[in-house]
Amino acid sequence: MRQFTHEAIDSAEFDRQKALYSPFTQSVRELLDAAIRTQVDDDTIREAQLAIEAVTQRLRARQLEGAYGVRYTVDGRGQAWGNPVIGVRNAMAPPLMIHTDPDLRCWSEFELGAAYEGPPGHVHGGVSALVLDHILGEAASAGMTKPNFTGTISCRYLRGTPLGALRAEAYIDRVEGVKTFARGFISDADGHTVEAEGVFIRPVWARD
Amino acid sequence: MRQFTHEAIDSAEFDRQKALYSPFTQSVRELLDAAIRTQVDDDTIREAQLAIEAVTQRLRARQLEGAYGVRYTVDGRGQAWGNPVIGVRNAMAPPLMIHTDPDLRCWSEFELGAAYEGPPGHVHGGVSALVLDHILGEAASAGMTKPNFTGTISCRYLRGTPLGALRAEAYIDRVEGVKTFARGFISDADGHTVEAEGVFIRPVWARD
Repeated sequence: MRQFTHEAIDSAEFDRQKALYSPFTQSVRELLDAAIRTQVDDDTIREAQLAIEAVTQRLRARQLEGAYGVRYTVDGRGQAWGNPVIGVRNAMAPPLMIHTDPDLRCWSEFELGAAYEGPPGHVHGGVSALVLDHILGEAASAGMTKPNFTGTISCRYLRGTPLGALRAEAYIDRVEGVKTFARGFISDADGHTVEAEGVFIRPVWARD
Repeated sequence: MRQFTHEAIDSAEFDRQKALYSPFTQSVRELLDAAIRTQVDDDTIREAQLAIEAVTQRLRARQLEGAYGVRYTVDGRGQAWGNPVIGVRNAMAPPLMIHTDPDLRCWSEFELGAAYEGPPGHVHGGVSALVLDHILGEAASAGMTKPNFTGTISCRYLRGTPLGALRAEAYIDRVEGVKTFARGFISDADGHTVEAEGVFIRPVWARD
């Protein structure tokens, strides 16, 4: 399994790749949504399947042996492009664009559609946990400059989170040694729907 | 937003649709994986994007207005096919096939590949939370015969969960009035990697 990648790229190459892969991944994301919602006849489904398999075969002609890993540009921009929450190359990711304020508070505004549904018309509780785990982790890691792994995470569901436009926020509550306590929430236009608290732990190899 | 669907189907139609959509969705799932891992040249990426957009356009010729919702066959088989964990029509779902033992313990064996990566070579912590929220919820709902919504869920990460073959289990720990307490874990060949506890609440409309 390929894990770490050492071929660091510069910022111009990062931008070039992002401009290529963002619309490509978006096309896969749209297909994923259409595959859930389509009501076309069976023959069209079968033809679509053959067309998709042909595209996949072309893409697999040359590919990474394992997963994408986490890469950094030579000037330190993170390239977690396979990531299921923020990944530029992962069609499962909404994707979240996470902003970090000067006080290190992280926030993101995003849309969740048909692919994220649990109860009818509402976000799957586990998808909310996925989003919150990620954004709390990013806040705890101070914008990904300090590696941290989730120790525990707890989510409290105040009410159903409707599919559609949402916001997530996270911030560091306190730091105790190698443990960082982060808090956050998901909200819709009417306020918080899910609140979370997480403990993130600095790995041994990254401690001072 | 389409939420509930009343057009109940019989068991034969359920099986027919499942046989049609399972391989179709699997083709989208493979494409999603290939899109993350491909190393083909830029022109091939652009051609693939056009081909994918053409398929999506055909599928969208006739589609549900909103998300898939949760349906049941006339004989009560659940059809949460848009679900991001178990959905037969959702390429984001691994998908988990969840088995329920006679004692109502739920378990599933599944594979997580490149699309679920957080730390290099390992499952995203939030994906583990997504899987656990779902399987604990299913255990708490006694095989989806009793509706329940997540009240709280807490996950404790014992060590990194490697991508690859995994198992998840969940069971009811105790019931107190409208609250069901469920526990579960994810494990690899070497034992538990993540443990979870959740409180699930019977909605008002489903109470006796």
